[in-house]
Amino acid sequence: MDYYFTPQADKLKPSAIREILKLSSAPDIIPFSAGNPSPEAFPTEIVEKITTDILKENPIGALQYSVTEGYMPLRDYLKKYMQEKYQTGTNDDDILITCGAQQVMSLSANALAGVGDTILCESPSFVGSLNALKLSGANLVGIPMEEDGMDISALEKAIKENKNIRLLYIIPNFQNPTGITTSLEKRQKIYDLAKKHGFLIVEDNPYGDLYFDEAPPATIKSMDKDGIVIYAGSFSKVLAPGLRVGWCIAPKNLIAKFTAIKQTQDVHSNILAQMIAYKFITEYDFESHLEKLRALYVKKAKLCFDLMDKHLAPEIEFQKAKGGLFAWCKLPENVDMPEFCTTAVKEYKTAIVPGSAFDIAPCKNQYFRINYSTPTDEQIIKGMANLEQLKLQILK
Amino acid sequence: MDYYFTPQADKLKPSAIREILKLSSAPDIIPFSAGNPSPEAFPTEIVEKITTDILKENPIGALQYSVTEGYMPLRDYLKKYMQEKYQTGTNDDDILITCGAQQVMSLSANALAGVGDTILCESPSFVGSLNALKLSGANLVGIPMEEDGMDISALEKAIKENKNIRLLYIIPNFQNPTGITTSLEKRQKIYDLAKKHGFLIVEDNPYGDLYFDEAPPATIKSMDKDGIVIYAGSFSKVLAPGLRVGWCIAPKNLIAKFTAIKQTQDVHSNILAQMIAYKFITEYDFESHLEKLRALYVKKAKLCFDLMDKHLAPEIEFQKAKGGLFAWCKLPENVDMPEFCTTAVKEYKTAIVPGSAFDIAPCKNQYFRINYSTPTDEQIIKGMANLEQLKLQILK
Repeated sequence: MDYYFTPQADKLKPSAIREILKLSSAPDIIPFSAGNPSPEAFPTEIVEKITTDILKENPIGALQYSVTEGYMPLRDYLKKYMQEKYQTGTNDDDILITCGAQQVMSLSANALAGVGDTILCESPSFVGSLNALKLSGANLVGIPMEEDGMDISALEKAIKENKNIRLLYIIPNFQNPTGITTSLEKRQKIYDLAKKHGFLIVEDNPYGDLYFDEAPPATIKSMDKDGIVIYAGSFSKVLAPGLRVGWCIAPKNLIAKFTAIKQTQDVHSNILAQMIAYKFITEYDFESHLEKLRALYVKKAKLCFDLMDKHLAPEIEFQKAKGGLFAWCKLPENVDMPEFCTTAVKEYKTAIVPGSAFDIAPCKNQYFRINYSTPTDEQIIKGMANLEQLKLQILK
Repeated sequence: MDYYFTPQADKLKPSAIREILKLSSAPDIIPFSAGNPSPEAFPTEIVEKITTDILKENPIGALQYSVTEGYMPLRDYLKKYMQEKYQTGTNDDDILITCGAQQVMSLSANALAGVGDTILCESPSFVGSLNALKLSGANLVGIPMEEDGMDISALEKAIKENKNIRLLYIIPNFQNPTGITTSLEKRQKIYDLAKKHGFLIVEDNPYGDLYFDEAPPATIKSMDKDGIVIYAGSFSKVLAPGLRVGWCIAPKNLIAKFTAIKQTQDVHSNILAQMIAYKFITEYDFESHLEKLRALYVKKAKLCFDLMDKHLAPEIEFQKAKGGLFAWCKLPENVDMPEFCTTAVKEYKTAIVPGSAFDIAPCKNQYFRINYSTPTDEQIIKGMANLEQLKLQILK
């Protein structure tokens, strides 16, 4: 049977990379395609102990209905933690616990943008967020990326040429998929443009703590004196994504509206998971846990980059990101990118994501994305050798 | 600062009962206002054991990203269980694990209805679902309730008078807030009307297992030969609402669209919670757990109904529901209902929900809702005596 869908829902197509991701879940495939934290990154024994303690000490609290806003001790702690450590959020802001940072994009889009409105975003950008924004019915306008973030003159042009601009969506640190970090100057410039032209910024920061050498610049939210920045944080990359615990820091009346909308989506986030996150960051040494994660990822990234130098360069070009989980690679102009990606998984058992998955609108795209947190070191070594074989075959 | 919200989001107001619910969370208030399962209903020790086992046996599986569709063993088991036990769902259907049944209403509304469309629903109905449906921008049309479900001639009239009818939302078993169960005849009639007029039915069934004497009639989904029923099930009332695990059974291409939309809301539901639900229903005796719940609630309901006979009748009228968690009570015409509810919580420390909270559109409403699962037996006894005092004061 053919069903009627709303125009926005109708346009929401299963992702083009779905087939590749399905194939890449087979055990003999090298998973450069995922965005998962390394299995080594999970503090499994601590989580087990914490969880058992919660279910012994306060089982009813962990199993009963809870408030939409989130577990109060976690909200209070995160509010203070984000203010003190990152100068992010003020007393004019409030905090809402969400189902991962993903829900912040869904709530922002639902509350703030619709048909006839414009949302600006980095191009390319994370497909999950793009889909959440698109589902609002708003028109997405992509701003090309430079090495230090959005092309500001392209942004200024887009602001002139589009009307009803409601939101600008940005991943300023180690962006997915490009790995690019927006410079402090550009953060300030983007903030100033948002203030001048009356739109809000959605700052999505899942990777900020996963830097290699030095911490990224101040958050855009830390510059927010005007109540125009919505900040999305997440435990997915620094504790465990399966818990689905993220948070939103935004001006109080935005949080009130987001809370009302979240109530229609899921009533509240799993309360046991919120309690686990709270105990983990308050009863254990969260800073040394982050240090351990950084040490783990810098090692995996270095292994990957060194092998990319050896096996992929110079024909395949890439920038070495300074943190995060991804490398963004460019094939020579004469190579058929989708075919390269398909052959990689089918013949070379090595799954990579075609760059077109991150396009705002369909266009020619020579990129593919590599993730180095999910595969083991052995898989990284084997996978890079596989990609070299494919490169040699294609360029022959 | 005043923010621009989309027209639909702008209309979504904090619930009028919010203040009463806030007051009712104080420890000295008798909570007739909630919809929580009884704390005695939670199998806390089993959940603790199951959870510890999962985190010992498969910690990475429980903490890593998972697929949007849900934990495969849980999906497979529920599909079979619902088919075999309730003849609900066929091989043309698929199943999606959601964040409670609430998310099914959000996904249905997002996919299937928008501005210019009509959604039919019982009047009164559950405010959480109504808000999810309203947020789509569709116009909600309430159908008055009779003792055996919707007034069918009013439904036929509404079908004639409204255009672009996309959905009919119904809680056929022990409806929230009225406690009414839709008769088998009316279920069939509603199904036939949906088929004839080309709209879909969203069947929300959180309370079906919580019957007092006999099981309710067959689900509407069990009549579905045409792929027009979306079924919402939930572990919230039969295991634990804090887990936020529900499910949706619907035709495959609807589930595919819902899955794409769910991905934009939360990526997937908390995976540990899905594993807990799976182990609970497969490794423990779920049927005898349901028997225990029924015995618990029939006892609490009987206590409550007997006291209502003693303290509230005849001036306050009510029907005795045959299952579920609620009693729906009608004040005499000359009583100011909102004032009665406010005085109950402020002066008599007894929180009840004003019936207007469940209205589709504002209108005069003489009802209030009582929940008997949340308060202890002692609280039920005390609360009913309090309400009698209030009744005598008001009618004096």
